[in-house]
Amino acid sequence: MNNHKLAHIGISSNIRAACASKLSYISTIMVRAKHFVYKKHFDGFPKDGDLVLEEEELPAIKDGEFLAEAVYLSVDPYMRKYAPWQPLNKTFYGRQIAVIKDSKNSKFPKGQHVLASFGWRSHTISDGVSKDPFPIKILPDYGGLPLSLGLGVLGHTGHTAYIGFLEISQPKVGETVVVSGAAGAVGSIVGQIAKIKGCKVIGIAGSDKKGKWLTEELKFDRFINYKTQDVKTTLQEFAPEGVDYYFDNVGGEISSTVIYQLNPHGRVSACGSISEYNDGGQKVTPIYFPLVAKELKIEGFQSRSWYHRWDEAVAQNLKWIQEGKLKYNETVTEGFENMFVAFTDMLRGGNIGKAIVKA
Amino acid sequence: MNNHKLAHIGISSNIRAACASKLSYISTIMVRAKHFVYKKHFDGFPKDGDLVLEEEELPAIKDGEFLAEAVYLSVDPYMRKYAPWQPLNKTFYGRQIAVIKDSKNSKFPKGQHVLASFGWRSHTISDGVSKDPFPIKILPDYGGLPLSLGLGVLGHTGHTAYIGFLEISQPKVGETVVVSGAAGAVGSIVGQIAKIKGCKVIGIAGSDKKGKWLTEELKFDRFINYKTQDVKTTLQEFAPEGVDYYFDNVGGEISSTVIYQLNPHGRVSACGSISEYNDGGQKVTPIYFPLVAKELKIEGFQSRSWYHRWDEAVAQNLKWIQEGKLKYNETVTEGFENMFVAFTDMLRGGNIGKAIVKA
Repeated sequence: MNNHKLAHIGISSNIRAACASKLSYISTIMVRAKHFVYKKHFDGFPKDGDLVLEEEELPAIKDGEFLAEAVYLSVDPYMRKYAPWQPLNKTFYGRQIAVIKDSKNSKFPKGQHVLASFGWRSHTISDGVSKDPFPIKILPDYGGLPLSLGLGVLGHTGHTAYIGFLEISQPKVGETVVVSGAAGAVGSIVGQIAKIKGCKVIGIAGSDKKGKWLTEELKFDRFINYKTQDVKTTLQEFAPEGVDYYFDNVGGEISSTVIYQLNPHGRVSACGSISEYNDGGQKVTPIYFPLVAKELKIEGFQSRSWYHRWDEAVAQNLKWIQEGKLKYNETVTEGFENMFVAFTDMLRGGNIGKAIVKA
Repeated sequence: MNNHKLAHIGISSNIRAACASKLSYISTIMVRAKHFVYKKHFDGFPKDGDLVLEEEELPAIKDGEFLAEAVYLSVDPYMRKYAPWQPLNKTFYGRQIAVIKDSKNSKFPKGQHVLASFGWRSHTISDGVSKDPFPIKILPDYGGLPLSLGLGVLGHTGHTAYIGFLEISQPKVGETVVVSGAAGAVGSIVGQIAKIKGCKVIGIAGSDKKGKWLTEELKFDRFINYKTQDVKTTLQEFAPEGVDYYFDNVGGEISSTVIYQLNPHGRVSACGSISEYNDGGQKVTPIYFPLVAKELKIEGFQSRSWYHRWDEAVAQNLKWIQEGKLKYNETVTEGFENMFVAFTDMLRGGNIGKAIVKA
């Protein structure tokens, strides 16, 4: 029985329920789900028509399943990055915080909130088994903090910042740290953890508004606006002692420039390369020379390889927030229908802190 | 007393000896030393006139000193690389194997051979203390093998290959290894150590003659001629399983191409970037994307950071040679006066195996 087709020809849910005699149980809750379908592979910057908002009627939940309704959805740089490997004509991928509206799965009771990789959809039926390496997680108690933080500082971006900085870099007190994409969801947390660990922190971002937030609110030592300042000479001015560690969210020429300023035995945590996602990777200054001459160590990493330390990262970030040591900002777009707008705005650098959509 | 000036006005050594009454002891051996003086910083490819062959008369040795005569001299890619940081109007830098012709230092007796950073010069007076991080070493017994190997497989290049491959990569049996600059002094040893360790080895070099040597003599599994073959497609053909480890001697676009073919969690030992030394680092395809997406680990290293494991490396390479597992080739240029020719020929890729000069 194909519920999508039934919905299309407009048979009412009562008639459909009668038809569905093969199903062991028919729930009383049936909903029309909205979702963004990946229609065309992005060619350069994502365009209208690449993702199309469609509706589908969901079947009733069966034993072991639950129905979840999106509350907050995440838009992240990685969605552009790995889009070439996503299947067409399916719901586009991503994570959301959803509330369980109905359940026939005792592990996921009605009323609970979950963090899950359901993709860009308003309603989801799940059997509780994740389709990607991240398990469906019931949100812990945030002690009164907004649930949306589960997509940011208490979710993947917070986990990424925590692991990427502390595990890959092993920072020492007094070291000079540069963070690119510094006002983004990950970069803004990395810089603050570096301050907590006693480092001198220089952030690179694309507007003075972001810079003001970084230095005045988050207490970064310095800020470079890569759109109006020369990164090399400004960095040499701000860090005459050289750079010990670089946390890279952007790739491209900015990263080559920073890597040339690293001290001997400098380290790089490579977390993202957003500057390259839409330009096809324009040629840049090679880094092979300083790599050898300064015996640098560069390590790329992804959050998913460190899920075994998820709870540790989230608990520590939560503690730092409660102690007033870690601040966050969210750029919130209202309305599920506006996900594509929120996504492209984030790719253009329109967000300060974590970009999310409130469904 | 300025011996250089004395030599210039042609005062005989006997008269000079008589003048040198301040010296506690005057040796009977006095020599005119030839040396290459660094006159102009290289601008692109080294040119005639950048290094100038001059002569100077050496003073008599004093207590604690010895006089060494170059037997073999090394020409290496690093000499081009770090040339911008070398002082002008001084002897150009480099290592040699020299025989001790006269000595007033009991640690360095007459007749012994030493490996030392004396630079491009035919004769040297030393107090036994090295002017760079590498100590002056008396050559051990090579069991009948040529002394010149102390500049190659039993010297810095052998040590570099041993440490760079075994320490940075931690190879596993069955892994696929790519080596660039494969027919060079370091690359040819790296590939053979990888074979000893049970890896599949693909070498990249610039002539079919080199390729024939790599596959037929050194038993590399495959060879890519980067001047006549497309590195990307040929590598995909030779390694459909992907590449686990890349030992990089060349940098530039070849390295970006190989790094894009690495498997998840692939590793890179960055040892050199000879392709960039003379072109000022032309822009290349950035590697930031695969670095993150595949969680790669790239580490630059230099031999000098691993001198504490010098004896281990040399002893193991010697053992492998004696067991017939490690082969070597030397491209020998005759005559100290021809060092600049040997140097530029090596930079153009004219050597197979280690490039040396026989004084």
